[in-house]
Amino acid sequence: MSQSVNLLRVNDVNEMIYNLGLLGITAFSMTGVIAAGRKGMDIFSIVLLGVVTALGGGTLRDIILDTDIFWLNDLYYLWVSIAAAVVTFFLVRYVKHVLRLLLFVDAFGLSLFTILAMEKTLTLGFSTPVAVLMGLITGVAGGMTRDILTGRMPLLLGKEFYATPALIGAVCFAVLNLYLPAHGFNRIYAIVLIFLLRGAAIQWGLYYPKWLTYSEKG
Amino acid sequence: MSQSVNLLRVNDVNEMIYNLGLLGITAFSMTGVIAAGRKGMDIFSIVLLGVVTALGGGTLRDIILDTDIFWLNDLYYLWVSIAAAVVTFFLVRYVKHVLRLLLFVDAFGLSLFTILAMEKTLTLGFSTPVAVLMGLITGVAGGMTRDILTGRMPLLLGKEFYATPALIGAVCFAVLNLYLPAHGFNRIYAIVLIFLLRGAAIQWGLYYPKWLTYSEKG
Amino acid sequence: MSQSVNLLRVNDVNEMIYNLGLLGITAFSMTGVIAAGRKGMDIFSIVLLGVVTALGGGTLRDIILDTDIFWLNDLYYLWVSIAAAVVTFFLVRYVKHVLRLLLFVDAFGLSLFTILAMEKTLTLGFSTPVAVLMGLITGVAGGMTRDILTGRMPLLLGKEFYATPALIGAVCFAVLNLYLPAHGFNRIYAIVLIFLLRGAAIQWGLYYPKWLTYSEKG
Repeated sequence: MSQSVNLLRVNDVNEMIYNLGLLGITAFSMTGVIAAGRKGMDIFSIVLLGVVTALGGGTLRDIILDTDIFWLNDLYYLWVSIAAAVVTFFLVRYVKHVLRLLLFVDAFGLSLFTILAMEKTLTLGFSTPVAVLMGLITGVAGGMTRDILTGRMPLLLGKEFYATPALIGAVCFAVLNLYLPAHGFNRIYAIVLIFLLRGAAIQWGLYYPKWLTYSEKG
Repeated sequence: MSQSVNLLRVNDVNEMIYNLGLLGITAFSMTGVIAAGRKGMDIFSIVLLGVVTALGGGTLRDIILDTDIFWLNDLYYLWVSIAAAVVTFFLVRYVKHVLRLLLFVDAFGLSLFTILAMEKTLTLGFSTPVAVLMGLITGVAGGMTRDILTGRMPLLLGKEFYATPALIGAVCFAVLNLYLPAHGFNRIYAIVLIFLLRGAAIQWGLYYPKWLTYSEKG
Repeated sequence: MSQSVNLLRVNDVNEMIYNLGLLGITAFSMTGVIAAGRKGMDIFSIVLLGVVTALGGGTLRDIILDTDIFWLNDLYYLWVSIAAAVVTFFLVRYVKHVLRLLLFVDAFGLSLFTILAMEKTLTLGFSTPVAVLMGLITGVAGGMTRDILTGRMPLLLGKEFYATPALIGAVCFAVLNLYLPAHGFNRIYAIVLIFLLRGAAIQWGLYYPKWLTYSEKG
């Protein structure tokens, strides 16, 4: 196989990942609006909800790592999240019919961004535990900021099983990289694992067993 | 006209802008305390409210742009916001009589800081859409953080028409700079536009029309 | 006294401070979980509460100062705060018996971190008022973020006397450094002062006098 073919393939993969990433951003923004939007909110607030949900996690990650915020130099992320929120604003009654589909696209976005964030963190020279944490923050912090902005409690009892699939997948990815370093499929395995766990949670409403829930009153 | 006169004028304008900026910070801090202060809060919390409202937006902007936080190297901003909050704490019953005046000074601060933040962002080499966003964040994020700290919902229905004037003015400033670049009065036009829109909102309680408010329940 | 003995002593002091710091982090995490944990929260949320309470303040300080986040390069802080939260999760009913002891260790952590943060800020070349502010933020911002995540109002009436001892101690440390510069015991005096004030607040439930509480309704 000639090198140019290989290069082509690498470019193809990178472009595919980029486009899948924009799809994930779209789903983050739309599900963010549907989850937190309230009757009577103006369009400005709705767009803010969508953008914060979609871009908030990666923004916090980049601030902590002190690297360029990812959407500052590539405005597609910003435009796509704004457009998705505007579409949801005007077409919410139709969008809600495909909410289940959106949740699965959102789960795919969570899987993809968790692993991409870990790769970015490792590339910047940080340790594996920091990479796991940044994977988690990327997937979760946007939704938590959205909940804070709309007066919900982000750590509410009965909260959906969202961060835990990302954590399990991130730890598996770290372990795979340790024992099978430079194995090109590790990222695929980890993405699929997170997607399956989160998908199962959407399908069957998983929650923590009783012995893993806090027993004292606050 | 000799160059020294020109230089003098530039310095005069900069000093005037600086002093107007401190006036805006004063109004941000005082209206922040009056809007969010609650009976029984201690003076420490009140000062924190004032400072966060006055400096929070610009702080978030500088963190995202990864530039020096503006109040770290010029402590006047910090002292002025602390002093304004302390004055409001002790003289709130008299200050409330001039609340309407304060709201208009606050509107002027919003206008000024939105456009100054855009100029700062463009000077740092970022694109125009990023500058619009940073203008908005500078004007709005302080008040939102204040609302979060006091348990209010920042995206509440019926929220005052505050961010939208800044957005409209910021977009107009961007368009003017595109078609009339280096025109010295663009900033004045944009500042006046934001002030008039926000002033109209204070005077007549503007709000979004129904077709621009979200129709689904959360 | 030979120089090697002196060096040994400096290393001993630094190691003691480091270990005392980890003890403080442990207490921050455990008291954070006990203060904000609610019946039914999953273990993931509990660990997040502990970590945010323990590391949140220093993280915000380092972001504002644009220096490396302290736990990125020394993972002990992260592991210790996670471990302390997990222990509290499983042993909360036993831990609560020593809550009073934990509160005093927490008070010691507050004292230590306020002064260490000031020294760090001054070493980075910032002015004394900025150092006082960073001392405060280090001690207080973690607990405030925890309250936001659990839907409490951080600036609630009747809030414990927590930030004020740190402020008083920080100002005293600044004044001591001004009039008795390079005096090796200044840090000890300031740490003891904060600890005594906060300890007195734990013991006797101190609160602000009426003339220092806000008199108007929000």
